[in-house]
Amino acid sequence: MDYQFSRNVPVSDEDPVGNILKVAGDPNIISFAGGLPAPELFPVEELKQVTDAVYDESGRQALQYSIANGDPELRDQIAKRMNKQGITCDTDNIIITTGSQQSIDLTAKCFINPGDTVIVEQPTYLCALDVFRSYGAHLVGVEMDDDGMKMDALEAAVQANPNTKFIYTIPSFQNPTGRTMPADRRQKMIDIADKYNVMILEDDPYGAIRFAGEDVAPVKTFEHEERVIYMSTFSKILAPGLRIGWVVAEKKLIKKFTLMKQTVDVHSDNLTQHIIAKYMATYNIDDHIAKIKQVYRKREGIMMDAIQEYFPENVHYSHPEGGLFIWVEVPGNINTQDLFNTCIANNVAFVPGEPFYADKVIPGTFRLNYSNMAEDQIKVGIQRLGKAIEETMNETVAAD
Amino acid sequence: MDYQFSRNVPVSDEDPVGNILKVAGDPNIISFAGGLPAPELFPVEELKQVTDAVYDESGRQALQYSIANGDPELRDQIAKRMNKQGITCDTDNIIITTGSQQSIDLTAKCFINPGDTVIVEQPTYLCALDVFRSYGAHLVGVEMDDDGMKMDALEAAVQANPNTKFIYTIPSFQNPTGRTMPADRRQKMIDIADKYNVMILEDDPYGAIRFAGEDVAPVKTFEHEERVIYMSTFSKILAPGLRIGWVVAEKKLIKKFTLMKQTVDVHSDNLTQHIIAKYMATYNIDDHIAKIKQVYRKREGIMMDAIQEYFPENVHYSHPEGGLFIWVEVPGNINTQDLFNTCIANNVAFVPGEPFYADKVIPGTFRLNYSNMAEDQIKVGIQRLGKAIEETMNETVAAD
Repeated sequence: MDYQFSRNVPVSDEDPVGNILKVAGDPNIISFAGGLPAPELFPVEELKQVTDAVYDESGRQALQYSIANGDPELRDQIAKRMNKQGITCDTDNIIITTGSQQSIDLTAKCFINPGDTVIVEQPTYLCALDVFRSYGAHLVGVEMDDDGMKMDALEAAVQANPNTKFIYTIPSFQNPTGRTMPADRRQKMIDIADKYNVMILEDDPYGAIRFAGEDVAPVKTFEHEERVIYMSTFSKILAPGLRIGWVVAEKKLIKKFTLMKQTVDVHSDNLTQHIIAKYMATYNIDDHIAKIKQVYRKREGIMMDAIQEYFPENVHYSHPEGGLFIWVEVPGNINTQDLFNTCIANNVAFVPGEPFYADKVIPGTFRLNYSNMAEDQIKVGIQRLGKAIEETMNETVAAD
Repeated sequence: MDYQFSRNVPVSDEDPVGNILKVAGDPNIISFAGGLPAPELFPVEELKQVTDAVYDESGRQALQYSIANGDPELRDQIAKRMNKQGITCDTDNIIITTGSQQSIDLTAKCFINPGDTVIVEQPTYLCALDVFRSYGAHLVGVEMDDDGMKMDALEAAVQANPNTKFIYTIPSFQNPTGRTMPADRRQKMIDIADKYNVMILEDDPYGAIRFAGEDVAPVKTFEHEERVIYMSTFSKILAPGLRIGWVVAEKKLIKKFTLMKQTVDVHSDNLTQHIIAKYMATYNIDDHIAKIKQVYRKREGIMMDAIQEYFPENVHYSHPEGGLFIWVEVPGNINTQDLFNTCIANNVAFVPGEPFYADKVIPGTFRLNYSNMAEDQIKVGIQRLGKAIEETMNETVAAD
């Protein structure tokens, strides 16, 4: 039949990134396009053991309906972890979600009326943009440099948009840029949020995967009032198939989130919540994270060395100290689709930058992923990519 | 801080049903208030076995990100089951959701603009009402009799509300009434939907739990155009903690649902999807469902006998042939809260009817659950309840 969709639904069925991933899925292509954690690091045996223990010790409870804010033992484990990272909280400050994507969606549902402004990094996580758009948000992108969002540009954006509901930031090893905001900027972001009375949505899926440099405390640790909604996930530190994330915020806010969570999926998978709680009680998850860091550090290092060797000199790229991504900016008025096509012809792929921008797109930008790539393939792939960039740059100069 | 919530959020933090369940949770009280499946029937050992097999055979895949519409093997198992029930479909007609609650939420998100009408049974599943309200729907309740929604009342409601987006129905063993719509009404509902060009949302969590009488085919099997969105879940036939449900609809609609699903939680728990797919490939789930039916039939029978013995003669109640609930209507202008208080004083509990009504409330109605109650407790509880009803009826007559 002819459906009359709500205005929450995008008119187009197109999924440009999905299409890119499909093209990049050709086995002849070395693809840096994905964003997956390395599956060879998943602690399969340990998870199997603790799952058996859950079935044996509390199987009927884990398989039954539970409470919307999440398994108390899992919230307790997360609260301990959060406090170690400087975020003062107890279990009533935490709600378990079906992954960070749902944390973003719940926040959007609770706060965005059509026309409200959400301020985002430029570029930022594209599926967050999709969520904000589905609630009719007015998106305002704030320019970044190598240290993340520029604070003068942020203040100007908040000032220009008095209907700003919140600032959405991924302060550590940002997706897609890999950039990290230093402590002084985090402090400044809080000052701006205080001055203009806006909230901050701090999305921190990657912060724990720091393999170089010094830790920077979460934005939430700098707050004076409880205006930061902090969210993280087990997707990058354990396994994304488990779809378990969490939100830390003021208790009265968690109460509202719990009411809304009940309407969207009652509660998150209870068996999985029990499995993760048992895993954290049995093993030191930081030992596991240390293994992830070691592997990602090595892969990032190989990619960095190859970029230095094979990329044209005036190409700019981020130098992440953690996370999964490197961001590349090719100078000149490069058509990124042309560059992508040249790359595919050279059997290498990336994700073009366009969909990561809320409004003003910077051409010639793209994201590289190193977490899920065999080490011997990285150098070969980057060499092909360097050649494709050079070709496209030469063509662009010739055409100008 | 002082939050400025969106209009999606209810102003009140109150959770009246939550409060009732808390009161009813007193161990001295025999509570028919809940709606839980019997945990002693969960196939814990079988699930443990197939989970081990998933870890051994496809652990890394089950723990990795997956596709938004759901695990292909699980969709294949569900498609086979649906076709056996007369719903012609293949895997592309199916999307896996994080339980039926998410199926309802996704449908609402895709179709409801503020002010759109949703027509519901009167009474109906209260958490569906919460979802529709969160999208600003105008709710119109349609009167029921012992055979479900009355078709003349339905047609009048659709006619009076030209902005009707869909009719929400639980045609089999409805929550809260336990009533089932016969085939001729299902046919008539399709005719009305065709005539006025509205969709039908068929919520069928209980249909498989028929322990008496003859099967009635799903509403979807009566459709001429693909206007029925059918949804079901593993919550009542396997285990609700697993939070896995599904939607069957036209392929182009499933595509839109998939786009929206990506924004709300990327995909449902992938490990759990693998576990259920493996369970269905290894065991005949209908053998398991047969055990559930046997136990629920016995409990319902005991409750029915006790009701006949202990309830005042003019009290009306449903005679479910499946599902989890019996609906009771006490005649006269009974204050259900007074009745509830009298019951609590007599150490027995139910869920009062009010929150199940979209608009016009019928007083003196309440829901009883028998699925999760020890057999020796049912008779004692119903005896207490009969006494409390009699007391309250006498007080009401005295006050009139």
